[in-house]
Amino acid sequence: MIASIDPSTGATTEVFDVPAEDLDRLGERARAAHRELEGAGRSGRAAMLRAMAAAVEERRTALVAVADRETGLGRQRLNAELTRTAYQLEFFADVLDDGAYLEAAIDHAGSTPMGQRPDLRRILVPLGPVAVFGAANFPFAFSVPGGDTASALAAGCSVIAKVHPAHPATSLLSRDALLAGARAAGLSTDVVSLVYRDETAARLVQHPDITAVGFTGSLRVGRLLADLAAARPSPIPFYGELGAVNTFVVGRAAARDRGAQIGDGLAASFMLGVGQFCTKPGIAVVPSGAAGSALTQALVDRVAAAGAGIMLSERIADAYADGAESLLAAAGVEVLARGGDGPAEGFRGSPLLLRARPDALEGPLLEECFGPELIVVEYDTDDDALTTLRRFGPALTATIHADDEDRRLATRLLDHAHRTAGRVVWNGYPTGVAVAWAMHHGGPYAATTNALHTSVGASAIRRWLRPVCFQDVPQELLPDELRDVPEHGRTPRRVSGTLDRG
Amino acid sequence: MIASIDPSTGATTEVFDVPAEDLDRLGERARAAHRELEGAGRSGRAAMLRAMAAAVEERRTALVAVADRETGLGRQRLNAELTRTAYQLEFFADVLDDGAYLEAAIDHAGSTPMGQRPDLRRILVPLGPVAVFGAANFPFAFSVPGGDTASALAAGCSVIAKVHPAHPATSLLSRDALLAGARAAGLSTDVVSLVYRDETAARLVQHPDITAVGFTGSLRVGRLLADLAAARPSPIPFYGELGAVNTFVVGRAAARDRGAQIGDGLAASFMLGVGQFCTKPGIAVVPSGAAGSALTQALVDRVAAAGAGIMLSERIADAYADGAESLLAAAGVEVLARGGDGPAEGFRGSPLLLRARPDALEGPLLEECFGPELIVVEYDTDDDALTTLRRFGPALTATIHADDEDRRLATRLLDHAHRTAGRVVWNGYPTGVAVAWAMHHGGPYAATTNALHTSVGASAIRRWLRPVCFQDVPQELLPDELRDVPEHGRTPRRVSGTLDRG
Repeated sequence: MIASIDPSTGATTEVFDVPAEDLDRLGERARAAHRELEGAGRSGRAAMLRAMAAAVEERRTALVAVADRETGLGRQRLNAELTRTAYQLEFFADVLDDGAYLEAAIDHAGSTPMGQRPDLRRILVPLGPVAVFGAANFPFAFSVPGGDTASALAAGCSVIAKVHPAHPATSLLSRDALLAGARAAGLSTDVVSLVYRDETAARLVQHPDITAVGFTGSLRVGRLLADLAAARPSPIPFYGELGAVNTFVVGRAAARDRGAQIGDGLAASFMLGVGQFCTKPGIAVVPSGAAGSALTQALVDRVAAAGAGIMLSERIADAYADGAESLLAAAGVEVLARGGDGPAEGFRGSPLLLRARPDALEGPLLEECFGPELIVVEYDTDDDALTTLRRFGPALTATIHADDEDRRLATRLLDHAHRTAGRVVWNGYPTGVAVAWAMHHGGPYAATTNALHTSVGASAIRRWLRPVCFQDVPQELLPDELRDVPEHGRTPRRVSGTLDRG
Repeated sequence: MIASIDPSTGATTEVFDVPAEDLDRLGERARAAHRELEGAGRSGRAAMLRAMAAAVEERRTALVAVADRETGLGRQRLNAELTRTAYQLEFFADVLDDGAYLEAAIDHAGSTPMGQRPDLRRILVPLGPVAVFGAANFPFAFSVPGGDTASALAAGCSVIAKVHPAHPATSLLSRDALLAGARAAGLSTDVVSLVYRDETAARLVQHPDITAVGFTGSLRVGRLLADLAAARPSPIPFYGELGAVNTFVVGRAAARDRGAQIGDGLAASFMLGVGQFCTKPGIAVVPSGAAGSALTQALVDRVAAAGAGIMLSERIADAYADGAESLLAAAGVEVLARGGDGPAEGFRGSPLLLRARPDALEGPLLEECFGPELIVVEYDTDDDALTTLRRFGPALTATIHADDEDRRLATRLLDHAHRTAGRVVWNGYPTGVAVAWAMHHGGPYAATTNALHTSVGASAIRRWLRPVCFQDVPQELLPDELRDVPEHGRTPRRVSGTLDRG
């Protein structure tokens, strides 16, 4: 029995009677669906993704209503997330139309300093069925119809999605939309299937039919599953988008000249969605003394004026309360401001603004606290700011606010940031991850379990593909994109070492 | 004490007094060298790689002589391998000149269905110091001056190389060549350092300064080290090019029309370099009855006429002898031919041609036997051929010999091959891996520990790079390749979604 719970009341609003989950049967169907996706070619998969986007749009009202009931994220945010999710499905259709993602390359037979070389043609092919773990905090964009699913289907991989327990009804309705899209494109409804039970998670990662895993969630669960993926008889790639403390540093001149504005923006960013973003800034490194005072004051005012929000689940609200308690108990930590009580019932989380002494940064202060919490740390010298930053591990984002006068510090911050973060944000706010060709959402461990790949943006498709080289294979037996004259349109390729836009 | 042993006599010809290996010190130097490589930019690293190639060429006579003394591979082969190794260093300089490997992408700020998007610019940056494990069977091309080192240095990663115990003197001289190249290009000699001791291997993979590992070697050692890499507090990518049973299938018409020719070619391929290739065909699936007889006869004749060869080390010769013994002891296996005795002394391995009943394929018959051994399995129907192939795990290569009449079987074979092998060879032989843009040398586990990446060819550089996205960062603080108008030449980029060849 899986319960759909309304976090704004704590009440169970719906119960699903989920039968025992037979992964062998799901795996067999997923293998067949993977071949069907492969056989549909780029144009067939692009048509399917566009039909899925349309089917998601058609169900907008119902999807937003059920997601709001299950997550408490609010209709405005969920409408925006649904727009993004549909856009993302269409975006991967564009990536398919473009075709450069195949990394197609042709080296004609010829002589080399090592003797005669055969005809070599390289392309990327899909891995097979993959597992996708939905995230609590993005019931659409990082869940059943989200980026992992969209990019995997685009690649030609069928998906077995593990539903997040925080939104089973949303997941079921999302799957209906995806399958309507698959049917509209003449493809099997086995391209996406769901599993619900938490006890199925480990078995799914270990199942021989699964060839890769996309995961968005906590470090604890992510690492557990990543370790299982690595320990399989045949290890598989595990793309865990986990979390870390995203840093936010403000130069002295920037703080002096626009401290209140930065403070307002930072407050909005860390409290956005009740702080339930993996890109939430967790630590603000600001100048000591007068330069930093306007910024800190703006933060204090904003937090004091804010109320508690409804968090995604009881577990998440409890974890946030525990995390806040650990921080408050730590030495060298003081409370700058707290938010108000907010709603009278439900799984509430109230904003919390702390200040920590630089020498107090250890233990829980260096770990992600998932929720509307921010720690301010002051610095005297540029070296002090860098020393504070170096206490933290890698993260998804590193934000730098700097004006021209801050350039010396900023250059050092940028050098550190590009080594330790997936995205470097300049004079902006890290929450909000655009779906775009140039986006990267990732970073060194523990931001993710695989620093080489992204979970957002065009190149997210690369996670589900592996190269194959065809040596001297006759034209008519080659994948279309590797033929001298492809039948189905143009594809960017590297031919005899030179890029050809196709 | 590390001994250099001549495998043609078993005698110790040189002894190195290797001090205790201080990885903290090596790691610190490697981190500084990594920053230096990064700072040198693409042109600086390309100049270094070309100087390294020249320095390897300058030492050709000495390098070939010492490698021959340590490996017994013969001067002709080793001269060819050295040519390939120098070419490979130059090839990665070409990859740097080209610049497409950076996957540079620019999305200008603009409005989207989700609202205003900031300016986003994505590029790949080097991971940091990496570890490279030299292979016994390629003292140049897959060892200290080999493809892992060349691609890592090209990426901007410094290298700590674990010397293979089969060729310490060759490794030392190779390092001298690389460091002469680094000096000639004005770079630190810490870009490549060596460790020798087997007991250092595990510590190296686990050392916090190491950000990735390239390994070529056995499944047993590779898996052991891959597990250590995955179990680190911060897991790192482990690129293990291991090994498996490479399949070789011959259609009925092909066997009938050119069986003797295929048999000659196959015999030469599996006995090449005393069978010590990871791409060695290990199983030949040939038609039963008259169609297959000329092929089998050619194999028998070639093997019976061949003598034993000198293997790389005592350990490898012993493992080959043990492997052959296991195969001979298996049920359903018969000897078709054996090679002669060969040299009177040294670590010898003699060719062995076996035939196995299809229903006997289990245990050792499904595992790689590193050495000049080939198992022939006959098939009656197309289904039988596929059934036999499906008994084997993924491999680096899958070879298909087929004529027009074999087209129905060949189509099925090709479908199976592209799902289970890294390279599909048509009417050819799998030994020999060209250094080229379109090469892929890899495959699903246990061919490698990471199916997504290659250890040979231009895209081998991708293993040492991770993406970073710069959001709204000012022009003058961006990496040159991401500026609106780069200072240092042209780079292929994707700008606003469209490929620009630069």
